[in-house]
Amino acid sequence: MAQIPIGIAGPLKINGEHAQGEFVVPMATTEGTLVASYNRGMKAINLSGGVKTTIVRDAMQRAPVFIFEDARGARNFVDWVKENFRTIAEEAEATSSVARLQYIDPYLSNKFAYLRFNFSTGDAAGQNMVGRATFAACGWILDNYKDHKVEQFYLESNLATDKKASQVNIMRTRGKRVTAEAVLKRDVLTQFMRVEPEKLQYHAQVASIGSILSGANNNGLHSANGITAMFIATGQDVANVSESSAGILYTEITAEGDLYISITIPSLIIASYGGGTGLATQRECLELMDCYGKGKVKKLAEIIAGVVLAGEISLASAISSSDWVSSHEQYGRNR
Amino acid sequence: MAQIPIGIAGPLKINGEHAQGEFVVPMATTEGTLVASYNRGMKAINLSGGVKTTIVRDAMQRAPVFIFEDARGARNFVDWVKENFRTIAEEAEATSSVARLQYIDPYLSNKFAYLRFNFSTGDAAGQNMVGRATFAACGWILDNYKDHKVEQFYLESNLATDKKASQVNIMRTRGKRVTAEAVLKRDVLTQFMRVEPEKLQYHAQVASIGSILSGANNNGLHSANGITAMFIATGQDVANVSESSAGILYTEITAEGDLYISITIPSLIIASYGGGTGLATQRECLELMDCYGKGKVKKLAEIIAGVVLAGEISLASAISSSDWVSSHEQYGRNR
Amino acid sequence: MAQIPIGIAGPLKINGEHAQGEFVVPMATTEGTLVASYNRGMKAINLSGGVKTTIVRDAMQRAPVFIFEDARGARNFVDWVKENFRTIAEEAEATSSVARLQYIDPYLSNKFAYLRFNFSTGDAAGQNMVGRATFAACGWILDNYKDHKVEQFYLESNLATDKKASQVNIMRTRGKRVTAEAVLKRDVLTQFMRVEPEKLQYHAQVASIGSILSGANNNGLHSANGITAMFIATGQDVANVSESSAGILYTEITAEGDLYISITIPSLIIASYGGGTGLATQRECLELMDCYGKGKVKKLAEIIAGVVLAGEISLASAISSSDWVSSHEQYGRNR
Amino acid sequence: MAQIPIGIAGPLKINGEHAQGEFVVPMATTEGTLVASYNRGMKAINLSGGVKTTIVRDAMQRAPVFIFEDARGARNFVDWVKENFRTIAEEAEATSSVARLQYIDPYLSNKFAYLRFNFSTGDAAGQNMVGRATFAACGWILDNYKDHKVEQFYLESNLATDKKASQVNIMRTRGKRVTAEAVLKRDVLTQFMRVEPEKLQYHAQVASIGSILSGANNNGLHSANGITAMFIATGQDVANVSESSAGILYTEITAEGDLYISITIPSLIIASYGGGTGLATQRECLELMDCYGKGKVKKLAEIIAGVVLAGEISLASAISSSDWVSSHEQYGRNR
Repeated sequence: MAQIPIGIAGPLKINGEHAQGEFVVPMATTEGTLVASYNRGMKAINLSGGVKTTIVRDAMQRAPVFIFEDARGARNFVDWVKENFRTIAEEAEATSSVARLQYIDPYLSNKFAYLRFNFSTGDAAGQNMVGRATFAACGWILDNYKDHKVEQFYLESNLATDKKASQVNIMRTRGKRVTAEAVLKRDVLTQFMRVEPEKLQYHAQVASIGSILSGANNNGLHSANGITAMFIATGQDVANVSESSAGILYTEITAEGDLYISITIPSLIIASYGGGTGLATQRECLELMDCYGKGKVKKLAEIIAGVVLAGEISLASAISSSDWVSSHEQYGRNR
Repeated sequence: MAQIPIGIAGPLKINGEHAQGEFVVPMATTEGTLVASYNRGMKAINLSGGVKTTIVRDAMQRAPVFIFEDARGARNFVDWVKENFRTIAEEAEATSSVARLQYIDPYLSNKFAYLRFNFSTGDAAGQNMVGRATFAACGWILDNYKDHKVEQFYLESNLATDKKASQVNIMRTRGKRVTAEAVLKRDVLTQFMRVEPEKLQYHAQVASIGSILSGANNNGLHSANGITAMFIATGQDVANVSESSAGILYTEITAEGDLYISITIPSLIIASYGGGTGLATQRECLELMDCYGKGKVKKLAEIIAGVVLAGEISLASAISSSDWVSSHEQYGRNR
Repeated sequence: MAQIPIGIAGPLKINGEHAQGEFVVPMATTEGTLVASYNRGMKAINLSGGVKTTIVRDAMQRAPVFIFEDARGARNFVDWVKENFRTIAEEAEATSSVARLQYIDPYLSNKFAYLRFNFSTGDAAGQNMVGRATFAACGWILDNYKDHKVEQFYLESNLATDKKASQVNIMRTRGKRVTAEAVLKRDVLTQFMRVEPEKLQYHAQVASIGSILSGANNNGLHSANGITAMFIATGQDVANVSESSAGILYTEITAEGDLYISITIPSLIIASYGGGTGLATQRECLELMDCYGKGKVKKLAEIIAGVVLAGEISLASAISSSDWVSSHEQYGRNR
Repeated sequence: MAQIPIGIAGPLKINGEHAQGEFVVPMATTEGTLVASYNRGMKAINLSGGVKTTIVRDAMQRAPVFIFEDARGARNFVDWVKENFRTIAEEAEATSSVARLQYIDPYLSNKFAYLRFNFSTGDAAGQNMVGRATFAACGWILDNYKDHKVEQFYLESNLATDKKASQVNIMRTRGKRVTAEAVLKRDVLTQFMRVEPEKLQYHAQVASIGSILSGANNNGLHSANGITAMFIATGQDVANVSESSAGILYTEITAEGDLYISITIPSLIIASYGGGTGLATQRECLELMDCYGKGKVKKLAEIIAGVVLAGEISLASAISSSDWVSSHEQYGRNR
């Protein structure tokens, strides 16, 4: 058993559609400074009235590829798939009591027809659920499509995109697409975080240009830190940090001179039951937030999004008030 | 304490420059099928003579930004930084007995001068070491640069890029840039993995087109799985899966009809001491591979790269022989 | 009047759905070697039976953004847009006898609702047609949406993406998505192009890894050359080379030892009437291919795709047989 | 001869290091509205004191690839290339009186060593000059490198990246890297452009998020329009619009309430002699700006950058004051 220290952060005041109230947050990390840093951001949020969280999309994918003699074969196949969507969905959904096929995104290139299946998966992350469902759907397709010979078929083609950062996840969602927003009061920032709203806003703009230059999948600072710590604590498939670490940060100064800050996590992949969530400590951590079991995954998504925003506020303030490095010193990390 | 089950995979035969011989590999994961899947790939590698591993680059970054009145100010500043590189390096290196400044990559845009500092960090991952060193260097720069007023300075600007997938990491390296290569014998693939080399080669090509369409940072399949499991087991900063999950897969059929397969991990961020590596179980896991402590980080990098390649071979074979989904069934994952 | 020399390339044998037979191709360029190079590729194609061309998608976009108080406002707005799609389409289509609204792709981030309107535009490129149509649709939306206040509205938001290379164009199409395919006979390549199929295939794979490293929007070689020369000759909006230069190249060795090569151009933006197509020489050039006027734009798209493939074959052969630079010498370009 | 109407825009007041004073600008386009739109932006700039232009980098590339048995071979080769840089540079430079090898960027992946040669090319765009020089350098390398067998060599590998939009061009420059900056007075914007600085600033931020979502290589609006029109008018290789259309836009409100706006064009590829610049009308157009011949290419780069910024200001103002579509109407484009 690998043992990773769990720190408790918070409480964090969340005004979500699924998570409402104050939540203490378990974070499993070997980084001494991390929980303290997130706590600092949570305080700033709480003093400003809390964080508003919203899930705007929810889908899990599997993307098989069908290969034909030529581009026409691939194109005509995609048309047939659209005409037969209902039956394909029935075949897919017959494999699970939960999985529901929302839609299929087709991508045509060369002689390849890539189909990105998008499913609802309830409270599970759903990679295997949708794998089974897509496999069944493809079986039916392969049995029933007669117009052109399918030269080759693979169940996955790097359009899902599982365990990978990608533009398709940022654009088209993978798992939960969730946004956390807060309006940070000027006096909270200046007195408690020792930074003016304008300096945070300015850093966000300069760092966005930095992201354009570096080709980063996140114009924020470190959403991966909070996500990873909560993933480990709550028994998530931590390899999904690859996708879940993407983020779109946006800030503006309000008419009142406060700071509106929000981050959208376009591909947050989590579960509230199944997999590692059932392990003893992990289940405890979920229960600590009343996020274990059926009907709780969206609540968990909102809490994670709120925590991520707290982390952005804390680190951005540290960078902007330039006491960042020293903040590590006092906790004596010897990396 | 979060507790995550550790499975032991291997042994894996590695012909590295730092890792040589057979290694058993600790993988911390809640995924029942993962260790079995990696074992399958390791067997295929061992039966083919082992995996060759090579570290081609090694650097850790911090990227401050200096803001000027205009683009000329930024450009002239960068020229001055080049002229004063030696002194800047001394100031940076004075903060650490280990950190060595290799070079500074300047990126100019608008009125911003982004400096991507590249350091050697010995056996540490080094994010904080280079943070301190860069902070000291910037202090000296701010004190000594007089030609133009520095309007604003931030120690980080999203060009590092820490805890984020990015093109700059893929192109210019972050942490270890390590390649694992193997030549898989045709009969091993056909008899043991039940797949022809040509089918794996074909899938790799089709999945590469898939990656181009999806804008993925990895044209392989799931390097994040092996990396994450080993990161947790060995006390790494797991949030670095964001960067470390990038990969460049390449395959070809050899003149003998075997399969050459290799993967380059351009931004593998690990340590063999410091941070979480010192925790009891994590240290044990490192010691299991003789990878704990000074002078061992490159050995660890090579082992991880070899494990990642094993995972690619295993999953690609499963997809190509289409028994992928069913392989999950028998292990009864209920996601 | 800027005057640019027009060379005539071809004939090129095209087996398209809209273009069928042999076509001579006008190319306006100041590059002495260009027409000769394309001719070489066309000969190789003709000797192998011609190029097969297929249009798989056709859509022109405009992408307004609606800004709300928060993410919930943006999400609920998108739901309302879906419910009212028919009426929105009617409002949009009332502005044109040609434009037809196919679907609206919504992209949600932070508190922004980006709507990517996708239209059919007949034989026009259609940027202005869809601009007017989207403007009218947005007018109706702004008048009729009452649930949340629209804080701000802009008719364009960089999701179209007009005059820009982008992943959304590669994934979701802009203008014509057209594929050109050919099976080049081994003896044609070895005798006429002085290169083995395997060497072209190998270069394509190595250059694809190069594209992954460089983050290029084209893993082929120079589709922009043929596209630009034909755009100038036929009175297209040449600035659309920005989008049209994207390409996805794929090659494989067939069972017979020949070379299958294809390129998909995901965002080819052209017109067969309107704008510059009506100018004297430009119209002549279109008429030379019987591509002027109504019902001819798809034919033109297929011809351009075929020409692009010819250029890929020619330059790839030159690179692979390493006489590339010298081929420029003899034409004495003094760049 | 293709004939394209040339409109004259300007004058534009430029405060450059190479271009100083007022310049009238020839734009070859079939778009009726284009010149009028650019003129509008130029007026706004002139009324605000002009545009400041700065070239921050200048390099042209060719990127051969050397393929080895394994990653170690590739890595060791790159070390040898570094040790022999001076000789390699001499071999390259012997082919031209102009080309100077600045540095070689190595990119290692799998068993491939990609070398991105960076040259100064004087007043030429230089693609062929650097092709010849790199070819000669590679000849010497292939003759003299003995440590490992070079299994395969190609003179180009998609790391240049010629005629393609790419992240490497944005990060590492191709051709001229030039920035145009202006401070637009509030009253000029409100009275002459009918838009408040804040509304332009807001649009720039929202459109930047749009660019992140769409994966565009330009967070501005339409630099390709001005660049293409000037490329055609001045005899440039118009296919280079593929690279040249990239742009990084940045805006901020100054302490005085004015708008600072700047755009960096990271890969502007132009010449002031050679190729098409010598054709009659094209040469006239260059002479109109005193940009023909030796020692004039940087002046031309600055003028183009200034024109591009004018176009951004004009279209952004039109979008923000929402009279954009109608502005096309009155010019009766029938697309």
